Amino acid sequence: MTKPKNIDVLKQLENLFDYLFSIGQIVAVVSRSQENAEKFAATFDIPKSYSSYEKFAADADIKIVYIGSAYTEHVRLSIQMLNAGKHVLCEKPLADTLKDVKLVHNLAWEKQLFFMEVCRINKNVALPIYAACVRNEKITTKTTQDRIKEEIISKNIGEPQMVSARFFLNFNYCERIKTQIRAGMLLDAGIYTVQFACLVYGEYPVSVKAVGEVVQSGHDIDGCIILSYSKGQKACLMYSSNVKSNTNCASIHSTKGSIELKDHFWCPEEVILSTGKETNKIPVGPVPFNYPNSGGLCYEAEEVRKCINSGKTEYAHYSHKDSEMVHKIMENVAKQIGRKLPYEK
Amino acid sequence: MTKPKNIDVLKQLENLFDYLFSIGQIVAVVSRSQENAEKFAATFDIPKSYSSYEKFAADADIKIVYIGSAYTEHVRLSIQMLNAGKHVLCEKPLADTLKDVKLVHNLAWEKQLFFMEVCRINKNVALPIYAACVRNEKITTKTTQDRIKEEIISKNIGEPQMVSARFFLNFNYCERIKTQIRAGMLLDAGIYTVQFACLVYGEYPVSVKAVGEVVQSGHDIDGCIILSYSKGQKACLMYSSNVKSNTNCASIHSTKGSIELKDHFWCPEEVILSTGKETNKIPVGPVPFNYPNSGGLCYEAEEVRKCINSGKTEYAHYSHKDSEMVHKIMENVAKQIGRKLPYEK
Repeated sequence: MTKPKNIDVLKQLENLFDYLFSIGQIVAVVSRSQENAEKFAATFDIPKSYSSYEKFAADADIKIVYIGSAYTEHVRLSIQMLNAGKHVLCEKPLADTLKDVKLVHNLAWEKQLFFMEVCRINKNVALPIYAACVRNEKITTKTTQDRIKEEIISKNIGEPQMVSARFFLNFNYCERIKTQIRAGMLLDAGIYTVQFACLVYGEYPVSVKAVGEVVQSGHDIDGCIILSYSKGQKACLMYSSNVKSNTNCASIHSTKGSIELKDHFWCPEEVILSTGKETNKIPVGPVPFNYPNSGGLCYEAEEVRKCINSGKTEYAHYSHKDSEMVHKIMENVAKQIGRKLPYEK
Repeated sequence: MTKPKNIDVLKQLENLFDYLFSIGQIVAVVSRSQENAEKFAATFDIPKSYSSYEKFAADADIKIVYIGSAYTEHVRLSIQMLNAGKHVLCEKPLADTLKDVKLVHNLAWEKQLFFMEVCRINKNVALPIYAACVRNEKITTKTTQDRIKEEIISKNIGEPQMVSARFFLNFNYCERIKTQIRAGMLLDAGIYTVQFACLVYGEYPVSVKAVGEVVQSGHDIDGCIILSYSKGQKACLMYSSNVKSNTNCASIHSTKGSIELKDHFWCPEEVILSTGKETNKIPVGPVPFNYPNSGGLCYEAEEVRKCINSGKTEYAHYSHKDSEMVHKIMENVAKQIGRKLPYEK
């Protein structure tokens, strides 16, 4: 077998930033602090750095902006960048109200620009297919979202009946909220579990029941949610800031079998499908990431690139409608548990 | 090392009925049908068989009765046997109302006889300890319930914050309820998940939220329950009659670590504790069991024997109060989901 021509692309998959550079150019970084912007640019070899969001938005070289600021700035910055004609991938949570989520979506639609709230797209590398791809000299592996949807549509596992997902962290949330702008655990971690249930069932639940602890600041620090759907299907979701666990799995339990996304389910290295175990390749970064398996974000970048190149303004597996469904559920939960974030309008 | 004297007892642990005979004598079996009683007696080498519950109750050789009838007979038979001066181990669910559960408990207390609703006590064989026991020529291994309580009290895993448990079956419940007397999935399977939460938290929850499908006959066929406790701890429980799964696990997620009871959690062969993995020895029977790992019931028999021999009328880890707590929660759930069993008064 001769060496595949695209072996470099495969190699680049091992490094998030190499990969980002391989599919486009990282043009500029912006921060309120010029010092921070320059430091970031130097670390990741980015040509331009800004401390003015206006000047950044006016840079004609920039086609798409990834917003990873404090969550309270997500809506304002999304609007600013969309108004400047940029496509936007915004870190979750886009907003703490459904109203604000819709505001941004409507603007993106009006401007016919790509917009997506981050939903942790991951590549699901089926090993035999992967080997075949190398031989075919192209990468055709699918995202985890694609594979799950395929499994559900094919009815290989029968009809999904129960979904479970849990996201536990142990990072002293009550201390963090004193110095950091945090959105509460529902919006910080619970959102992934809600996104997962929505991916599986694809409709708004007929019933939402939730509990959660709300501390004096108004932040919620944990929660459990039960969602019930039109055909009697259910989802049981759990999240906490005060649990040490390495079993943050998500699973779909169906009439003929199960699908399981192993810890960390939002960026899993292992997925159990009806066809057996599949493993994910998670790229590393040039410096350590703040959160586990963040290198997997390259797959999100790749999907966004494909959408933009093909003129799509939304991602099929996490459309504006999907994102709004997730936020509508979370708004319902927030109301039930009495959450009132310090920054909520 | 010389061969331990009690090696036969260890060997007997491999067979449920050998074990039962080793700790006492199975005296008699009773069934409405003389033919069935005789067949059962012949299969398991039991000296006497009855088709009259009155004559069975009058047999002075019988000290303790295990009631494994249709659940609708549990209360009536428990009362009959207690009134005849027998200790009783009754299959779950003891009853479909808390009122009936209390009725039986009060009678047992009045008569000062041992009474327990089955709660699947399992032996947790810590392998190094087990080896040591063989050398010490006695079996001192602990039940899973003991080990979990020890872990919680020792705070090895910190403070429990979240409990999860799921019990999924795929056995065409909607067909079965047409010909069999069934108690609905909450009382058939959900009870184990509720028992588990009660074992961990040991108090009545401050909030119970539940959903469940109720079919035309009035039976519930699945459900999800969230329990919230006084210090903000929570439990998320799931059960279904329509799911094929081999991931029926239960876990305790705490501030410093987790405990996990692997599939099938109510009779696990593997438990992950703070100290590592421990494996259970599940005895087989002389004929195949109807349900997985039923050989583990020998451990329940052993605990009951120890209680009776030491003059106790309740089992410490599943007292009458504990059983009533479980039924009180289930009564709350049944009301929320609108269950109405055909046999409920």
